[in-house]
Amino acid sequence: MAFELTKEYVEQLSNAVDQRDEVFIRLELEHLFSADISVLLSELEPEQAYYVLQLLDIETGAEILAEMDASIRRDLLALFDSAQMARYVNVLDSDDAVDLLIEQSVRIREEVIALIEDREQARFIVDLLPYEPDTAGGLMQKELVKINVRQTVTECVEEIRRQAEEVEKVYTVYVVDDENTLLGIVSLKDIILAKRGSSIEQIYDHEVIYTSTYDSAEDVAELMRRYDLDALPVVNVQKRLLGQITIDDVIDVITEQAQEDIAAITGVSEEVEEDDSVWKITRSRLPWLGIGMIGSLLAAKFLGIFEHDLLMMVPALALFIPIIGSTGGNVGIQSSSFMVQILSDKSGFTGEFWPRMLKIATVALLKGVMIAAFVFLITYLILSHPVKLSLVVAVSLMAVVLLSSFTGTVTPIILNRYGINPSVASGPFITTANDFLGYSVYFGIAYLLYNW
Amino acid sequence: MAFELTKEYVEQLSNAVDQRDEVFIRLELEHLFSADISVLLSELEPEQAYYVLQLLDIETGAEILAEMDASIRRDLLALFDSAQMARYVNVLDSDDAVDLLIEQSVRIREEVIALIEDREQARFIVDLLPYEPDTAGGLMQKELVKINVRQTVTECVEEIRRQAEEVEKVYTVYVVDDENTLLGIVSLKDIILAKRGSSIEQIYDHEVIYTSTYDSAEDVAELMRRYDLDALPVVNVQKRLLGQITIDDVIDVITEQAQEDIAAITGVSEEVEEDDSVWKITRSRLPWLGIGMIGSLLAAKFLGIFEHDLLMMVPALALFIPIIGSTGGNVGIQSSSFMVQILSDKSGFTGEFWPRMLKIATVALLKGVMIAAFVFLITYLILSHPVKLSLVVAVSLMAVVLLSSFTGTVTPIILNRYGINPSVASGPFITTANDFLGYSVYFGIAYLLYNW
Repeated sequence: MAFELTKEYVEQLSNAVDQRDEVFIRLELEHLFSADISVLLSELEPEQAYYVLQLLDIETGAEILAEMDASIRRDLLALFDSAQMARYVNVLDSDDAVDLLIEQSVRIREEVIALIEDREQARFIVDLLPYEPDTAGGLMQKELVKINVRQTVTECVEEIRRQAEEVEKVYTVYVVDDENTLLGIVSLKDIILAKRGSSIEQIYDHEVIYTSTYDSAEDVAELMRRYDLDALPVVNVQKRLLGQITIDDVIDVITEQAQEDIAAITGVSEEVEEDDSVWKITRSRLPWLGIGMIGSLLAAKFLGIFEHDLLMMVPALALFIPIIGSTGGNVGIQSSSFMVQILSDKSGFTGEFWPRMLKIATVALLKGVMIAAFVFLITYLILSHPVKLSLVVAVSLMAVVLLSSFTGTVTPIILNRYGINPSVASGPFITTANDFLGYSVYFGIAYLLYNW
Repeated sequence: MAFELTKEYVEQLSNAVDQRDEVFIRLELEHLFSADISVLLSELEPEQAYYVLQLLDIETGAEILAEMDASIRRDLLALFDSAQMARYVNVLDSDDAVDLLIEQSVRIREEVIALIEDREQARFIVDLLPYEPDTAGGLMQKELVKINVRQTVTECVEEIRRQAEEVEKVYTVYVVDDENTLLGIVSLKDIILAKRGSSIEQIYDHEVIYTSTYDSAEDVAELMRRYDLDALPVVNVQKRLLGQITIDDVIDVITEQAQEDIAAITGVSEEVEEDDSVWKITRSRLPWLGIGMIGSLLAAKFLGIFEHDLLMMVPALALFIPIIGSTGGNVGIQSSSFMVQILSDKSGFTGEFWPRMLKIATVALLKGVMIAAFVFLITYLILSHPVKLSLVVAVSLMAVVLLSSFTGTVTPIILNRYGINPSVASGPFITTANDFLGYSVYFGIAYLLYNW
């Protein structure tokens, strides 16, 4: 029962906006969730979306802005003055407010903060702005419900009632001491189930999982996934409670990570959407087509060395250029994606270095021998090539499998050590390098064997 | 502050198990979360893990089993008799209980169900067993908290208190009528904030997002992601409330989807882990290395047709075989991954078919012209090849870009229509086919131009 956005619907709304048909627009949007209105407005011109937003109340408008893609939101917010922006920022969760402000110039950002009515919200935002977006600090919101460990359950319900109006969703109630040190958690369910007279001390859970502001978004996602958490408290070095990260923000992190990995593997350098211009789409694809081109032209130049004394003598050598290229590429991708999987699996345990390398080398050797034997038999017996050529192809394939396994294994480890997404190692750059390596080995071995 | 599992720790525990050192084991595990114990036990032999489980209470043991990888759990459960298994199944959430039982033989499954003490739980399991694992029905649990719309908030709190003991985490309270039809939801927060005297009718939210048992796990994930839901109610065709899906189960769906996509792209056919045997790892990689081999050998056979009249005459043609292969592969992957992205983005709107194809064709033409021009200039001016050869290469590249864009765009659409994961289209099979197509075009054009 998801809302499906059709072209007709967008046109209908767009026309209504152009005719300033306030009644129709209000009536239509009343039944939609803010996430859907957000998608809908993203399809309109910024001026049209601006008009629609004016018709909605500030809370709904703020939710819509929070759901919107950053690039579309930027164009839309360009139409707002700082006072208007401040009205929306005023009611947003602090993490969403920061996401919105971080896209603005420093001047506008400071104007908006100065104009926010709720001074606590302004303070929250100033606290959160310095954190890097892809850390726990960048993901956290300041809004949370906390109680002092010395309170009773009855006091606690009153406290929650007071604080909960500020907080969109209450997942967990944090238990702190007088210094705001995080001691544990208690769920709303436990509070409802507890006897009115009992103290928080008696019912709260001491075993709490928390994170520090500087932890990476990836680690936060892994932590919340592993322990099935709905909310994760964020503390400073003194274990003082600073904020919380909620599960909905982490789902976005997980989704983005997966998209980044796939983009790295398929070598798309810039994020593009279907409705971007032809030129933008083309441009996003040129960088690594360019790398591929230059790599292949270098290969052409390199193979040219053998044109006269080898290719002219044995033109059949050319027939096996494709098999060398594709084997190197395939084996490299298999090894690197296996390594990437191992590197990203933080829950598994890490064995020792050399036994692991030995195992990888054994797999490579086994693959190499099987491929070489298979191709030798086909080339010699079925394609009826001379034994010398068949031998050159088989030995080269063996060498290519070993070499590509090696580069495919080592590259992700090196990239990971330097903080680069190791998925890149399954991408175009490495594939091009592997191809080149493969051709060199092939013609090198052919040259040796034919001039022997 | 995640728990890090070291080889030393596993060995220490393993020794303690072999020496039946109950005190040490209890002491060590007391401070660990069940998710961590689960990872730890997965590293032990099934007999060792079985011994450890016996030392823990049934609730903790059940949580550990629920967190465990299916394949490891199967080996471990093989050591249990039906009565023991029933004790764990008795306390699990119904969805986890079903996941565990579905791996067992029908005989054991029925024995266990017969032995479950909690007869409501047994009924839940019988209800859930028939659903396909990758549908909403397969993801849902029967445990939930619901109230009748005619109740007051005070009655509701009592009702929640009664029901909540059964339910691990209370996210949302579902509001139903006398026929169990889903009317809306009310959050625990709203109940705490509401005046005691008010009726549920006054405070509940009518706008509720729900799903049907037959909806796909992917759609469920997309729905929960889009609307930031913690729990999603599942209804039948009469809109009767059947169960709910919680966010932690959906995170696993999202993570698995991403892994499947990456496996499809990098062409790993069987899921392997680092500690699998050398032979298992090798075997998992052979199928598509095999496809690549056969494709390349066919290419060798095909190119062989041109060996005498073309390659002997113009051996330099061989130098550009790599550029043809890699361009076809690269362009194909770019087009297909773009198409996969469009197909998976259900929140975006779908334009009309022909204008979209026209756009894709324009991008392909633009890429083709730029690449052809660039390579012609390099080949002719810098590598100093004859104009005829440079022309053959440039024209072929142009054709290869157009063809690969076409296959890369169309293949995911066709796969998607037949219910196959379209990510496969970025994988080895399509790449091999594209390579082959590229070589045919290249030698076809060369043959025409040189025999003209």
